Amino acid sequence: SKFEYVKQFETDDPCLQNCWIVVRIDGKAFHKFTDVHHYMKPNDERGLGLMTRAAQTVMADFSEVVLAYGQSDEFSFVFHKNCKLYNRRASKIMTNVVSLFASSFTLYWPRYFNTQELQYPPAFDARVVLYPSDDNLRDYLSWRQADCHINNLYNTCFWKLVQEKGLTPAQSQERLKGTLSSDKNELLYSQFNINYNNLPELYRKGTVLIRPRDAEAQSERETNNYRGYSASKKSERKPGSVVLHSDIIGKKFWEEHPYILNPKLYGS
Amino acid sequence: SKFEYVKQFETDDPCLQNCWIVVRIDGKAFHKFTDVHHYMKPNDERGLGLMTRAAQTVMADFSEVVLAYGQSDEFSFVFHKNCKLYNRRASKIMTNVVSLFASSFTLYWPRYFNTQELQYPPAFDARVVLYPSDDNLRDYLSWRQADCHINNLYNTCFWKLVQEKGLTPAQSQERLKGTLSSDKNELLYSQFNINYNNLPELYRKGTVLIRPRDAEAQSERETNNYRGYSASKKSERKPGSVVLHSDIIGKKFWEEHPYILNPKLYGS
Amino acid sequence: SKFEYVKQFETDDPCLQNCWIVVRIDGKAFHKFTDVHHYMKPNDERGLGLMTRAAQTVMADFSEVVLAYGQSDEFSFVFHKNCKLYNRRASKIMTNVVSLFASSFTLYWPRYFNTQELQYPPAFDARVVLYPSDDNLRDYLSWRQADCHINNLYNTCFWKLVQEKGLTPAQSQERLKGTLSSDKNELLYSQFNINYNNLPELYRKGTVLIRPRDAEAQSERETNNYRGYSASKKSERKPGSVVLHSDIIGKKFWEEHPYILNPKLYGS
Amino acid sequence: SKFEYVKQFETDDPCLQNCWIVVRIDGKAFHKFTDVHHYMKPNDERGLGLMTRAAQTVMADFSEVVLAYGQSDEFSFVFHKNCKLYNRRASKIMTNVVSLFASSFTLYWPRYFNTQELQYPPAFDARVVLYPSDDNLRDYLSWRQADCHINNLYNTCFWKLVQEKGLTPAQSQERLKGTLSSDKNELLYSQFNINYNNLPELYRKGTVLIRPRDAEAQSERETNNYRGYSASKKSERKPGSVVLHSDIIGKKFWEEHPYILNPKLYGS
Ligand SMILES: Nc1nc2c(ncn2[C@H]2C[C@H](O)[C@@H](COP(=O)(O)OP(=O)(O)OP(=O)(O)O)O2)c(=O)[nH]1
Ligand SMILES: Nc1nc2c(ncn2[C@H]2C[C@H](O)[C@@H](COP(=O)(O)OP(=O)(O)OP(=O)(O)O)O2)c(=O)[nH]1
Ligand SMILES: Nc1nc2c(ncn2[C@H]2C[C@H](O)[C@@H](COP(=O)(O)OP(=O)(O)OP(=O)(O)O)O2)c(=O)[nH]1
Ligand SMILES: Nc1nc2c(ncn2[C@H]2C[C@H](O)[C@@H](COP(=O)(O)OP(=O)(O)OP(=O)(O)O)O2)c(=O)[nH]1
Ligand SMILES: O=P(O)(O)OP(=O)(O)OP(=O)(O)O
Ligand SMILES: O=P(O)(O)OP(=O)(O)OP(=O)(O)O
Ligand SMILES: O=P(O)(O)OP(=O)(O)OP(=O)(O)O
Ligand SMILES: O=P(O)(O)OP(=O)(O)OP(=O)(O)O
Ligand SMILES: [Mg+2]
Ligand SMILES: [Mg+2]
Ligand SMILES: [Mg+2]
Ligand SMILES: [Mg+2]
Ligand SMILES: [Mg+2]
Ligand SMILES: [Mg+2]
Ligand SMILES: [Mg+2]
Ligand SMILES: [Mg+2]
Ligand SMILES: [Mg+2]
Ligand SMILES: [Mg+2]
Ligand SMILES: [Mg+2]
Ligand SMILES: [Mg+2]
Repeated sequence: SKFEYVKQFETDDPCLQNCWIVVRIDGKAFHKFTDVHHYMKPNDERGLGLMTRAAQTVMADFSEVVLAYGQSDEFSFVFHKNCKLYNRRASKIMTNVVSLFASSFTLYWPRYFNTQELQYPPAFDARVVLYPSDDNLRDYLSWRQADCHINNLYNTCFWKLVQEKGLTPAQSQERLKGTLSSDKNELLYSQFNINYNNLPELYRKGTVLIRPRDAEAQSERETNNYRGYSASKKSERKPGSVVLHSDIIGKKFWEEHPYILNPKLYGS
Repeated sequence: SKFEYVKQFETDDPCLQNCWIVVRIDGKAFHKFTDVHHYMKPNDERGLGLMTRAAQTVMADFSEVVLAYGQSDEFSFVFHKNCKLYNRRASKIMTNVVSLFASSFTLYWPRYFNTQELQYPPAFDARVVLYPSDDNLRDYLSWRQADCHINNLYNTCFWKLVQEKGLTPAQSQERLKGTLSSDKNELLYSQFNINYNNLPELYRKGTVLIRPRDAEAQSERETNNYRGYSASKKSERKPGSVVLHSDIIGKKFWEEHPYILNPKLYGS
Repeated sequence: SKFEYVKQFETDDPCLQNCWIVVRIDGKAFHKFTDVHHYMKPNDERGLGLMTRAAQTVMADFSEVVLAYGQSDEFSFVFHKNCKLYNRRASKIMTNVVSLFASSFTLYWPRYFNTQELQYPPAFDARVVLYPSDDNLRDYLSWRQADCHINNLYNTCFWKLVQEKGLTPAQSQERLKGTLSSDKNELLYSQFNINYNNLPELYRKGTVLIRPRDAEAQSERETNNYRGYSASKKSERKPGSVVLHSDIIGKKFWEEHPYILNPKLYGS
Repeated sequence: SKFEYVKQFETDDPCLQNCWIVVRIDGKAFHKFTDVHHYMKPNDERGLGLMTRAAQTVMADFSEVVLAYGQSDEFSFVFHKNCKLYNRRASKIMTNVVSLFASSFTLYWPRYFNTQELQYPPAFDARVVLYPSDDNLRDYLSWRQADCHINNLYNTCFWKLVQEKGLTPAQSQERLKGTLSSDKNELLYSQFNINYNNLPELYRKGTVLIRPRDAEAQSERETNNYRGYSASKKSERKPGSVVLHSDIIGKKFWEEHPYILNPKLYGS
């Protein structure tokens, strides 16, 4: 029709080739959302479990995702460097991911929150960020995990002071102002007899999702059973995802799972 | 932390100022989705109603939307030219819209489909398109509504031939190949005693959502009661949205609702 | 060859359709360049003449330019809204314009500076800016012309105080700090017997280049000789450009030259 | 002023961090330009020399360039990965480079073409291309040098057939259609007693510009005099550039000049 010319106003937004594509989604106004839905403070296992469930749905649908990392109201999905999904169109990738995440979060809500009904539909923003090198990508993931740690340590102290010492939020904030990590560890230990490092890894490290095959690879190799986990045997890659709460800042994780970043596995 | 530098790899993606911002969302693989969920063919009132419900949720949340238009598995949201939402960042706008749409679709599913359960979480893509002039914007909306008409006329014929004449899909397609609109109208009338123009406007025109205030403006003016629907009285603008199935290709609609495109109403 | 894949790393950068495309070029470090080449202060007629000559070369080569405006070490080229040059690729447009400007500036240097030799090759930056509406475009041009006026008034005072009253640059700057336009006009009049408005329009208004046909249009129309300056007679449009130093902030200029912004003249 | 809002229509266009930034410039319509100026066919030493001179001017001005490669009417400038020039704004970088190249080409024309006067100012386009990995960058440069070789072999045959065998251009083209490289080598040898590999490297390999320091590094190291060519001694890096006609496809060049791609030398 004579109206079709308007299609030309659409623009293409391809991601630069040979870069890791990260899609990070983050809950919109989850300060309010978690309040309205009576999330436990500072960590609600139901909420975190539901986030992970939604992220697993994304991983099941998008086989190009090699790893996902989540904490608080956010999740990051790492698409491998050679990924050709939607011709690498940024809008297509991020909107498909975020909408699937949002609908999964909503669909699976009752399985995690039982009688606590969902009061209104949640929204998430999403963005695409490109990382040219493996080091950049690892630093990105380290940035998010360090953020998890810092916030969790602070929030743990904050809510202990409020919930168990009866401080007002303002007083609690004042008490923590200027404290170092070591101060907060000490505070937890001396005042609440809590060894921070014994708190659940879920809270301290967040959630790492990788492919079953990548998770198994190490032990298989060790038992000398590992043969030919290779690009040519992509079919061997199992669908789904494995849930970990590992440290991904240090190099141990990456040494144990060398296949995650190995581009050979994703074709050129 | 030493990892924070990775934040700099994020890029800004502002929409050009003084342009209409259109966000169009479209169901991912709804060919399959509608099949799995036994949608009526060619139009399922429940499905269309649910799409509209989700779009209304978006309009309730994003007051900058002046009009939305939907048909089939898609919806377009028009943000006014001076809209400052998220500093006009394209990614922020489209991902918030599409994720809210997806979670609303999922949350309200049971209200429309009752015992027909949602089998898996639906995804939608989204894109931002900019239109510099009012004419460009109207041509965009005309393009979508013309698309609705063309598809609906075709699909109505196609399924009548299949459902009532027992043609196979392939035969039905063959029968319709090369036919003009007039041929299809004639076919419906002669073979099925259907006057296409009497079919529900919902199917033929799709769904137009506007603001209550914009919908009322005309009659108020006519009854001489209209006083000062103006930018300075934004508070008068009611939340929510009014559902229409009007023709938006001709100029009548725009003459009757002059406030929709009037930039004065949205600040400079 | 096996290296050709690298071509895919190139990205397209089309300008949004139906927008005015402005290319503004600006001399790199012309503070130093004008010093080294002993430009007259605050305005050097040779320098301004050479800039105009280079801009005319650009207009001769790029027929899609409908108007150019220059002042100081900068020039803006306005490409009409429907311009299809290089498929509206921004990089192609700005680099061709700026390199042609730079080589023209260099080639024609001796014609303007005679025995004053060019000491080193000058560079210019360039940028593309899009304006959706005619008002936006006119405001852009007004912004540049107002900038010309403000700088010229200031510089005229500054150099008078230095050159004729023997103030040091620092003293001159101090003397002018916080003065209004009216103060500066008054200063020129009372101290130097200069009526600012009598200074050359070249200095006060900058340089406007339009097409011969657009320049003639008005008088022709008035003498009733104007017949059919229309899109269908593009051949009538003469090449080259006419040099004016008109005010382009007020509406008079635009009323007198209605063809400049008229999109009908450039095809749809 | 009230017009300043138009500045907001400008957009930022930063290059993704940690990528090699390549600016490639290419002569506009040099088919005609070389004809008009009676360039020798297929290679004109004056023209190639002038291109190199202009490229050296660019390298002298932009210390972030680590290597430049030129052939025919094009030159590529490689900015190192950590380059912060103009905040990595693509438009700023490419327009400054291309305009300086164009004005240098024009300014130095007489030194290379003597009495052959420049008939009109030349233009060049420019583009920015990003390469995430060293391999991508090397493949880019290999692509350009392979292009040089292929064109030069073809053009050498083509013009020999025209100039020495009296074929028309059409006949010459016909004669070469479908020939392999080996066929062309054989043709040159059997018909013109030319050993292609003995033709000047300038024609066969194009021109490589590197920094004096990078050129020296190897021999210094070998003589054991190399101490601390490091980021902290940037001052050691000499300005200017060294002209080579080396093969840059094989690894030998890169092994001999390991400093060119070494990011440590350019700060993080
Ligand atoms: N009580 C509780 N709150 C949580 C939990 N996980 C996340 N939140 C809350 C804490 C923060 O207020 C919020 C996440 O912070 P954000 O920086 O994402 O801010 P918010 O989502 O409010 O705003 P935004 O729209 O992202 O700018 O979610 C949880 O497990 N329990
Ligand atoms: N039966 C039925 N099908 C519908 C209805 N509305 C939409 N659909 C189906 C018909 C089309 O197959 C599909 C929409 O076409 P699209 O071009 O958007 O394709 P689809 O969503 O399959 O793929 P996509 O991921 O958008 O490329 O949705 C409805 O009311 N009833
Ligand atoms: N003496 C003299 N100087 C002029 C004339 N026209 C321009 N200039 C100088 C005055 C300013 O220092 C300079 C233009 O200012 P800009 O803001 O463009 O700065 P500049 O080019 O130095 O740096 P840039 O590379 O553009 O950031 O050119 C002239 O006619 N005579
Ligand atoms: N005779 C002669 N011609 C040369 C020499 N170097 C380059 N050329 C010519 C051969 C080609 O026609 C032309 C370069 O080809 P391009 O693909 O860049 O095409 P051209 O510049 O004509 O058009 P463009 O504006 O780049 O699309 O320049 C030379 O040394 N001698
Ligand atoms: O999805 P289509 O086929 O209607 O056409 P499109 O939406 O323009 O294509 P894409 O979804 O790939 O942008
Ligand atoms: O949302 P914040 O405050 O964590 O920081 P951000 O996500 O970088 O900000 P924005 O959501 O506005 O991009
Ligand atoms: O100019 P060509 O034909 O060598 O190919 P290109 O440079 O990729 O084309 P364009 O100049 O249009 O980008
Ligand atoms: O160059 P200025 O200072 O007039 O301002 P600008 O041109 O907007 O700055 P930039 O040249 O850095 O884009
Ligand atoms: Mg945020
Ligand atoms: Mg949030
Ligand atoms: Mg968050
Ligand atoms: Mg589509
Ligand atoms: Mg669809
Ligand atoms: Mg659709
Ligand atoms: Mg500037
Ligand atoms: Mg300047
Ligand atoms: Mg300037
Ligand atoms: Mg080209
Ligand atoms: Mg060329
Ligand atoms: Mg070329």
